[in-house]
Amino acid sequence: MSRNRFSGIHCSLARALDQAGDWWTFLIVRDALRGLEFFREFQASLGIARNILTLRLAQLCDNGIMTRTVHPDDRRRICYRLTEKGQELAPALVALMQWGDRWISGTDNAPVILLNKGTGAPLSRLELSDTVGEPVSSGEIRFSPGPGAADISAISNQCCD
Amino acid sequence: MSRNRFSGIHCSLARALDQAGDWWTFLIVRDALRGLEFFREFQASLGIARNILTLRLAQLCDNGIMTRTVHPDDRRRICYRLTEKGQELAPALVALMQWGDRWISGTDNAPVILLNKGTGAPLSRLELSDTVGEPVSSGEIRFSPGPGAADISAISNQCCD
Repeated sequence: MSRNRFSGIHCSLARALDQAGDWWTFLIVRDALRGLEFFREFQASLGIARNILTLRLAQLCDNGIMTRTVHPDDRRRICYRLTEKGQELAPALVALMQWGDRWISGTDNAPVILLNKGTGAPLSRLELSDTVGEPVSSGEIRFSPGPGAADISAISNQCCD
Repeated sequence: MSRNRFSGIHCSLARALDQAGDWWTFLIVRDALRGLEFFREFQASLGIARNILTLRLAQLCDNGIMTRTVHPDDRRRICYRLTEKGQELAPALVALMQWGDRWISGTDNAPVILLNKGTGAPLSRLELSDTVGEPVSSGEIRFSPGPGAADISAISNQCCD
């Protein structure tokens, strides 16, 4: 699947998918969220070929989602860490994991539970609401042209009602 | 990318990614959320080849994310609609779109704004919190074995601290 296929689709979802690259991105970011930082750790966790992991980590760094730095405690080791941009993928990852728990694994059979380290309480299910606090069901979402909708006719044909 | 590569990774995120198939899935579900239901509408929106769209819609139906039915007002037409399972992908889609708005398009330049049809108010940014109401930053998430963690040693090597 060519990443360029999505570049022309004028929508931040398509742009996010385009930049994130492929499924490995999500799993690498998941592993970085749980504290992995060395190449060997990602490789062991994901069972991914060295050349693919090298490429994906380079893409993540090029896109500003991760940084490649010398480890502060051992200057011979390189570590990969999430930038703020990468950390902010957490809600999308958690939403997908919760969906997988509910519809594939089964909530009573979740392989992994996400907790708040501080309180020990589980993370709440992510649900849509609006800025006045009303819950929003999937059928109640309206796609409307935003300030970056330079070509309204193209947008209305692609992202909006 | 073989979908089977992810089947062995014991985590609902990997399972969700495995079942969702590829990026087209997200964009087809996005279009279904905004009301498209006919093959021709999806094709015009996405600029996707007929054979790829046919395959992706069949996969979405096989995975229970969409249904293929005769249109109630015109029995000669086939329509594709989201199931409850498909509708519940909305938070993951919205989270990714919000991330794309913030980090790629720029929030002041969002091509599309999502509104609550009922109130007209914009959707809130999805943020993580726990079941006692505390906000949770990405660095505060702890991955813990769940009830479906049949092989704890395998999980701890893959999804947990």
